[in-house]
Amino acid sequence: MRIALNFKKIEYDYRPIHLVKDGGEQNTKEYKLLNPSGEVPLFIYDELALGQSVAIMMYLDRKWPNPPIWPQNPEQRAMCIQLCEIINSGIQPLQNLKVLKYVDAKFDKMAWGKHWITEGFKTLEQTLQKTNGKYSVGDEITSADCFLVPQVYNANRFNVDMEQFPTIKRINDLCLEHSAFKESIPENQPDAS
Amino acid sequence: MRIALNFKKIEYDYRPIHLVKDGGEQNTKEYKLLNPSGEVPLFIYDELALGQSVAIMMYLDRKWPNPPIWPQNPEQRAMCIQLCEIINSGIQPLQNLKVLKYVDAKFDKMAWGKHWITEGFKTLEQTLQKTNGKYSVGDEITSADCFLVPQVYNANRFNVDMEQFPTIKRINDLCLEHSAFKESIPENQPDAS
Repeated sequence: MRIALNFKKIEYDYRPIHLVKDGGEQNTKEYKLLNPSGEVPLFIYDELALGQSVAIMMYLDRKWPNPPIWPQNPEQRAMCIQLCEIINSGIQPLQNLKVLKYVDAKFDKMAWGKHWITEGFKTLEQTLQKTNGKYSVGDEITSADCFLVPQVYNANRFNVDMEQFPTIKRINDLCLEHSAFKESIPENQPDAS
Repeated sequence: MRIALNFKKIEYDYRPIHLVKDGGEQNTKEYKLLNPSGEVPLFIYDELALGQSVAIMMYLDRKWPNPPIWPQNPEQRAMCIQLCEIINSGIQPLQNLKVLKYVDAKFDKMAWGKHWITEGFKTLEQTLQKTNGKYSVGDEITSADCFLVPQVYNANRFNVDMEQFPTIKRINDLCLEHSAFKESIPENQPDAS
């Protein structure tokens, strides 16, 4: 989300939500009124309080069309959404904080996260073979790259062996040369500790 | 997906994929060439083999715009995508066959599924308060309803108490009066046993 905002050069006010401190700021009554799921990110614009990354990224392209982050060609666009969902619905939900807390009692959290990221990356790596150019979909940066880079960041936290996924790795490395991606990595946020 | 196709009256050739028999037809080499995730649904049109429900439903609206299943108003559209993702990335991934198999050794599968659907429906019920009219988003059927109805079907399989979720229940009941939804329920498919 930060990547997409930076890429489009949309000015925004960043409000860090501390996910662990005091049981998580995302679980406060005030936050849940704005986002009942108690999840991040949350995008606020005028009357709209919008959760879910895919919804936010689609909205950004509607309101601030340039530069686009979703391809205009219908088939490329469809494949781009597929790539985003491989991460957004296929990997991220299984290794988010809420699920890791829940499985904690019975599974090794690190092994659990590594398993699901590895499985999801196998799908992603193969699907990228049909779509990738310089970036995930052709030669332009798209929302698929905005999902890919943070997921690789998480993969590293869970010690996933990235040598198995040469295309994902190559695209991630290339994206990180771009300022929109560089500025978005967690270590470069005001609340980084 | 079936609902969206029926709603738009798009003729299609239905190929059942048996998820359990012989370790699952979705895990065959042939199927995985078309859809590396080994998941359903898969939508094939000309050269395009497209996975992920959200990607398919967005593509359907591009190619067959009438009747639309995504709102045209940017804010309504964004909220509609959010509703879809609450189910598509917040619930479905945690109670699909692949994950249930994996947790089987350490969790009661039924309790696991019931937990995640109940959590997700709490979010959905609250978010619907901002968007619902006759249906999930205003008074027209949208893709959010196409996600809602199958998820309620699954909730019933996992014995989720639907009395906690009056809005979801009301919309589900109303949708099921529409032929596109009625024709799409699993019992009415050619491969129903």
